[in-house]
Amino acid sequence: MRIGIIGSGALGLYYGAMLQRSGQNVHFLLRRDYQAIQQHGLQVYSCNGNFHLPQISGHQTAAEIGTVDLVIVGLKTISNHHLIDLVTPLIGTNTAILTLQNGLGNEELLATAFGAGRVLGGVAFLCSNRGEPGTVHHLGEGKIRLGEYSGGLSPQSRNLEEMFQAAGIPCDAVSDLRRARWEKLVWNIPFNGLSALLEKDVTDLLSHSPSKELVKDLMLEVIAGANAQKLEEPIDGPRFSQQLVSFTENMDHYRPSMMIDREEGLPLELKAIYAIPLQQAKAAGIDMPKISMLHTLLASGENNHNRQLCPLPNNRTGKEQQ
Amino acid sequence: MRIGIIGSGALGLYYGAMLQRSGQNVHFLLRRDYQAIQQHGLQVYSCNGNFHLPQISGHQTAAEIGTVDLVIVGLKTISNHHLIDLVTPLIGTNTAILTLQNGLGNEELLATAFGAGRVLGGVAFLCSNRGEPGTVHHLGEGKIRLGEYSGGLSPQSRNLEEMFQAAGIPCDAVSDLRRARWEKLVWNIPFNGLSALLEKDVTDLLSHSPSKELVKDLMLEVIAGANAQKLEEPIDGPRFSQQLVSFTENMDHYRPSMMIDREEGLPLELKAIYAIPLQQAKAAGIDMPKISMLHTLLASGENNHNRQLCPLPNNRTGKEQQ
Repeated sequence: MRIGIIGSGALGLYYGAMLQRSGQNVHFLLRRDYQAIQQHGLQVYSCNGNFHLPQISGHQTAAEIGTVDLVIVGLKTISNHHLIDLVTPLIGTNTAILTLQNGLGNEELLATAFGAGRVLGGVAFLCSNRGEPGTVHHLGEGKIRLGEYSGGLSPQSRNLEEMFQAAGIPCDAVSDLRRARWEKLVWNIPFNGLSALLEKDVTDLLSHSPSKELVKDLMLEVIAGANAQKLEEPIDGPRFSQQLVSFTENMDHYRPSMMIDREEGLPLELKAIYAIPLQQAKAAGIDMPKISMLHTLLASGENNHNRQLCPLPNNRTGKEQQ
Repeated sequence: MRIGIIGSGALGLYYGAMLQRSGQNVHFLLRRDYQAIQQHGLQVYSCNGNFHLPQISGHQTAAEIGTVDLVIVGLKTISNHHLIDLVTPLIGTNTAILTLQNGLGNEELLATAFGAGRVLGGVAFLCSNRGEPGTVHHLGEGKIRLGEYSGGLSPQSRNLEEMFQAAGIPCDAVSDLRRARWEKLVWNIPFNGLSALLEKDVTDLLSHSPSKELVKDLMLEVIAGANAQKLEEPIDGPRFSQQLVSFTENMDHYRPSMMIDREEGLPLELKAIYAIPLQQAKAAGIDMPKISMLHTLLASGENNHNRQLCPLPNNRTGKEQQ
């Protein structure tokens, strides 16, 4: 299958490399890694075994890639204002689009531009970080749960399930994508936000018992918001939150993407992971007060970020740096 | 009056200097500033006019000070495990003790050791920071509201009110110290904690409107906790919180003590300002969920502090410093 990867970060590079290794015809839209990959190929350091792909079809523009059978979107949602322009050149009559981005609102954006019928979404339970240009580190996990934006178990989603499985990527096609999205938020909302705010990896967060309790409280708020979204079946709050905490306790000092973004002074994915979920919960009559507070605390830090990029011509920056 | 200052930080040095300038016989227990003050005296930089006191009675031990008529306690509450030992040498038959420390629990500690009758508490609305050794910066405000630990308007509290007023320090004696303590917490709980957590001064906090809303929400939680404490008269939540926000909007980039403590890697006054108020509210049947979350987030950072002081023999520190 001819596949285009839009957003070749830790996720896009890893899944794209796995798919190419399994024989798929994969084309990557590259920015930071273009030169390194053209010269040396792509090196994957994986807990399941390292491998190197000497030949990568890397491109600097989407137009160069041209139409494909499948677009896989791994773009940071903070760049969603570019998403439609980046995907458009890849769309042919029968092109499917699978977004593996974080949070909510991404399928809606793609469906509005390209039609709901070709849009699928997936949630990736993947621990991966970028390394030096031309390298990606797969630290653990990797399972994808994908489904149709329009709902239901389609042949299209079954085909993608098979494709990922054939590439050694655990994958389930699900009939209720909305539930899968909210299940992922049960992890993202506490761990991304708290790790970015407190500059603590997941292991250090869970080693402080009041913070561990806060993680559980935040998870239960997400689940209450989720269960107000007309899911095919509700999420079992106590059981699922305990499962996710235990699952995370087995990660060794994993640093969520939002923690790394904050450390690198990059904007955070607050809209997809906090603002839209808060809106959708509120629309369903559910308040998520602790999540709302966490969102405010994270958004306040984004002021710093903005100020960092364009210092104000007054004494604020100076004073803060005292 | 012979006065001993225990805890000569930004607050103790400023009030002590004002009292000495007004003719009181003031003795300071000094640590960091001892050498500088012995050599050059004490320099006060004040928005009401700078002044210099060439002769200061500074001491390195409380025993050197000996008994006094009044002990003024300005000690950081994180050092309360030393409080009784530091105050004991100053206590004579008729010695009164006035604690101007932050938060709750300080009068109780002193009353248990020295008897409730001689213990008074005060809340200081003072913007001051320490400068170079031998200097203190008075940035604004300075009013003290003081009262008997046992309640009621005593001659003793009236005398202290007069003494402070004669020294140019606005002061009110109040009959309900508990109310004054909680009123102060309505400011301390949001501004100390948020400034320390987000590394933002009060002006930058209030310039972010969601953070400003969070400040108000936190204030209303404190007031709900306060009004469950059998106060002589309840605090008017909306009016008082709006007053404090407007009052704070007039401060120019003031950096609360807890923000400075966090920047300097010092432990935070979490017990007096968060833990005990949370306990007392809970005992009165009031939950303060946002304050509890803020306390957890601040306490989590104290782990870093502890780790900073005694790095763990594993890879945690290293990983976190990536």
